[in-house]
Amino acid sequence: MNYMDYAIEEGEKALENGEIPVGVVIVKNGVIIGKGYNKKEMNNDPTEHAEIIAIKEACKIIGDWRLNGSEMYVTLEPCPMCAGAILQSRISRLYIGTFNKDMGACGSVVNLIDNRSLNSFVNTIWTYDDRCSELLKKFFSTRRKK
Amino acid sequence: MNYMDYAIEEGEKALENGEIPVGVVIVKNGVIIGKGYNKKEMNNDPTEHAEIIAIKEACKIIGDWRLNGSEMYVTLEPCPMCAGAILQSRISRLYIGTFNKDMGACGSVVNLIDNRSLNSFVNTIWTYDDRCSELLKKFFSTRRKK
Repeated sequence: MNYMDYAIEEGEKALENGEIPVGVVIVKNGVIIGKGYNKKEMNNDPTEHAEIIAIKEACKIIGDWRLNGSEMYVTLEPCPMCAGAILQSRISRLYIGTFNKDMGACGSVVNLIDNRSLNSFVNTIWTYDDRCSELLKKFFSTRRKK
Repeated sequence: MNYMDYAIEEGEKALENGEIPVGVVIVKNGVIIGKGYNKKEMNNDPTEHAEIIAIKEACKIIGDWRLNGSEMYVTLEPCPMCAGAILQSRISRLYIGTFNKDMGACGSVVNLIDNRSLNSFVNTIWTYDDRCSELLKKFFSTRRKK
């Protein structure tokens, strides 16, 4: 399995819970130190996006708020809140599964990640993984049937 | 006391704890439903900015992730993460004490709050409250003495 497979597994958990399916893992030195999936509706908390949950977990595990040298794998392009959290946490590399045309903050709507004014040094790699877009399609087709 | 006074009180708690002094209160129908101060270093968590803590508390109190109709009072212009969280939570009005020239996401460096592409409808009121800038100066002068 590659790391995006684990992020997709997280996203599937969100789907099973009726949430917009987004999943994340954070990897440091080949070890997964944080993972998360969107729990906004379940927990009635607009900050409980997959990325924030995974960052909190990773920082707890390593006992430091600085995640320099870590990589995040996320199934969907982060929103402004999550892109901002990635900057705050100093994650070094970001692998994105698919783009978010409504709220994407890594180039689709705004670009916080590749932005020297914000002192950002995150390397972004777009994987354009069909499984990540399929995950979202599955969610929205279920919603339409209701 | 006006609501910014309470936000400043929160910011002072951050200062006492050696954190960059930022404080927040969230008000709905004249009642404070959430408050917070920066706890990033204390809790080793880069997401524990005052705004995120206050939003989490307010949502827990009202049992809904939607904070429409609420106002946030914050001593310092929010960073991208926190401005994004304000959008996610649908807070209606934002009172800002002073600007943040390094990371401000309400106009100083980027503008996420007054941004139709992000479907944002937050009303922003700049209060230019000297006490808010003094709070920051106090923090940085203490640091220089060390």
